[in-house]
Amino acid sequence: MRTVLCDTLGIEHPIVGFTPSEHVAAAISRAGGLGVLGCVRFNDPEELDAVLDWMDTNCDGKPYGVDIVMPAKVPTEGTQIDLDSLIPQAHREFVDNTLRKLGVPPLPDDEASGAGVLGWLHSVARSHVDVAMKHPIALIANALGSPPADVIAQAHRGGVPVAALAGKAEHAVRHVDNGVDLVVAQGYEAGGHTGEIASMVLIPEIVAAVGDRVPVLAAGGIGSGRQIAAALALGAVGAWMGSYWLATKEYQELSSAGTLQQALVRATSSDTVRSRVYTGKPARLLKNQWTQAWAAVDAPAPLPMPLQNLLVSEAHQRMMRAGDPSVLAMPVGQIVGSMNEIRAVADVMTELVDDLEAALTRLDELRGL
Amino acid sequence: MRTVLCDTLGIEHPIVGFTPSEHVAAAISRAGGLGVLGCVRFNDPEELDAVLDWMDTNCDGKPYGVDIVMPAKVPTEGTQIDLDSLIPQAHREFVDNTLRKLGVPPLPDDEASGAGVLGWLHSVARSHVDVAMKHPIALIANALGSPPADVIAQAHRGGVPVAALAGKAEHAVRHVDNGVDLVVAQGYEAGGHTGEIASMVLIPEIVAAVGDRVPVLAAGGIGSGRQIAAALALGAVGAWMGSYWLATKEYQELSSAGTLQQALVRATSSDTVRSRVYTGKPARLLKNQWTQAWAAVDAPAPLPMPLQNLLVSEAHQRMMRAGDPSVLAMPVGQIVGSMNEIRAVADVMTELVDDLEAALTRLDELRGL
Repeated sequence: MRTVLCDTLGIEHPIVGFTPSEHVAAAISRAGGLGVLGCVRFNDPEELDAVLDWMDTNCDGKPYGVDIVMPAKVPTEGTQIDLDSLIPQAHREFVDNTLRKLGVPPLPDDEASGAGVLGWLHSVARSHVDVAMKHPIALIANALGSPPADVIAQAHRGGVPVAALAGKAEHAVRHVDNGVDLVVAQGYEAGGHTGEIASMVLIPEIVAAVGDRVPVLAAGGIGSGRQIAAALALGAVGAWMGSYWLATKEYQELSSAGTLQQALVRATSSDTVRSRVYTGKPARLLKNQWTQAWAAVDAPAPLPMPLQNLLVSEAHQRMMRAGDPSVLAMPVGQIVGSMNEIRAVADVMTELVDDLEAALTRLDELRGL
Repeated sequence: MRTVLCDTLGIEHPIVGFTPSEHVAAAISRAGGLGVLGCVRFNDPEELDAVLDWMDTNCDGKPYGVDIVMPAKVPTEGTQIDLDSLIPQAHREFVDNTLRKLGVPPLPDDEASGAGVLGWLHSVARSHVDVAMKHPIALIANALGSPPADVIAQAHRGGVPVAALAGKAEHAVRHVDNGVDLVVAQGYEAGGHTGEIASMVLIPEIVAAVGDRVPVLAAGGIGSGRQIAAALALGAVGAWMGSYWLATKEYQELSSAGTLQQALVRATSSDTVRSRVYTGKPARLLKNQWTQAWAAVDAPAPLPMPLQNLLVSEAHQRMMRAGDPSVLAMPVGQIVGSMNEIRAVADVMTELVDDLEAALTRLDELRGL
């Protein structure tokens, strides 16, 4: 199955895979999709540069892309110390008390507290673009909509198309008006930052709004070939998948993946929640004791981006370190209910492609073909 | 396009249309789908009997079905006066004050306050089944899951298959274990009572869980042939549509449809909310000043079913009577964003069937067929 997306991106299958792991991203690209590496975790541009060097030698010459997180509105800039002073003491106490109640130990003495995610500051996201443009990337995607005009222009000067995620048709129109080349229609089902309109409604709405101007990818809830077939039936030209790659062997190269994968494999499609506790903006997360604590009536309201993630950053680190699969902070979509075993990326890709063909064959049979 | 659903129900197109209007239901059946009449509004079984007599002479001999609302747990029974005593005074005052703030006038002196919906009391729902079984119905659907075993047995003795709506795969398995013949997989997008798992994830989960035992219909967010094609790609054998028929000419036979249709035509897919204010159970409604008032921090929590609907019943009547499209209580799904004109049911059906064929042809073209 080839679509215009395959020609636009130079890939074999109409499947784009977003992942924070370079090992997963490279494996997706090697398997004929487009691996898209999430950059938001790289506070240090040099670290991203080194990882992209690794990508350049580990994708077997196949294309890959990068994903940045630039909010449409520029959030408060400043050093981390400036931002820290904006976090209310009561919020810090709530986090401390919650971790104590949940039995999450402090970090070991020899482990420094991470700096928290700064990748959604414009200055840091811009550094990601600057670094990525020095590499042979095939796509820059922005998780929070259109990047600024000069960033789009910078990408286009280098011949790199720009994708933007959209949770409403009006946002998709704005992105295309701003010069974005591909729109990712991301439904309510999706993990991470997501809107309220579900894929069945959102995808055809966005295709109707911008599908004659740019290719539209479908995101949110996709983890099988029959779902890719459904996305194509709705007018998309390919699928953008994120959560599903978390249950792969290649993801285990990231430390603490073991605890996380235990939690993912046991979760059902009912075990996620859309909440502001991870970043300050609504994002779908694994539902567990941590998210439930924030949903209690006496819990404080989450802080705006980027303060909320700075507030909970060390807590995330402590929970991941503690190794309890029932207490974790993890963005994941409703497709988690189908993530029931850990497989190699290449095997996942083969199954997706085979299941897509099988779904289309079933449709033929229904038509008596 | 024929599927096993067409054979099971004796219909031409794999499209089941749920509606509270007998005029719409009959038109759906005449157009080759299965019209399913919602019974919950009939507090008086004799009134339902008369309406089904009308259906028997207005479906051109084509099959039709009925929809009842039997909660899995039997709610408090009693006369309306008994139930009224369970409604807190503070709730009544909140409703009165809200209507005053929103400028909704009282009922005219010559219009009696309706009794409120009692159709979800088991005794009333059972009367619906008893009445319906005297008519040549092709389906009994239960909006809230499996009916009791004796109701299923009663239907089966009369040769009538039973359908049950399910918002989780585990519920679908329970329904089929209880003897249900068709499962309607209803996603988060849907209007009325609905769960949290969106169609893209829910439909294949339910097909995987029970699709080898019973036909699975897809519900939630469907208003076009490409969405029916997507549902079929996900493994369903047909579509269950509800909201979309509210924007039809035949629906105008119900009084006050004009104000409602104005509100529906102007609403976007962002203008719904999942809330307990209509019945006490989570249901997707048109988002407007009424639902926003209940979402305010100082608003009381909605009462459990059936008390909440008794509390708001006269308010619903007053709002509908007032004729302000920005203040209405109306269940509708996210597909409302695509309900942009009022058409005849037969025209809607023709467009659905043509668009389904077009979507399948597009898939053929993608495959180079």
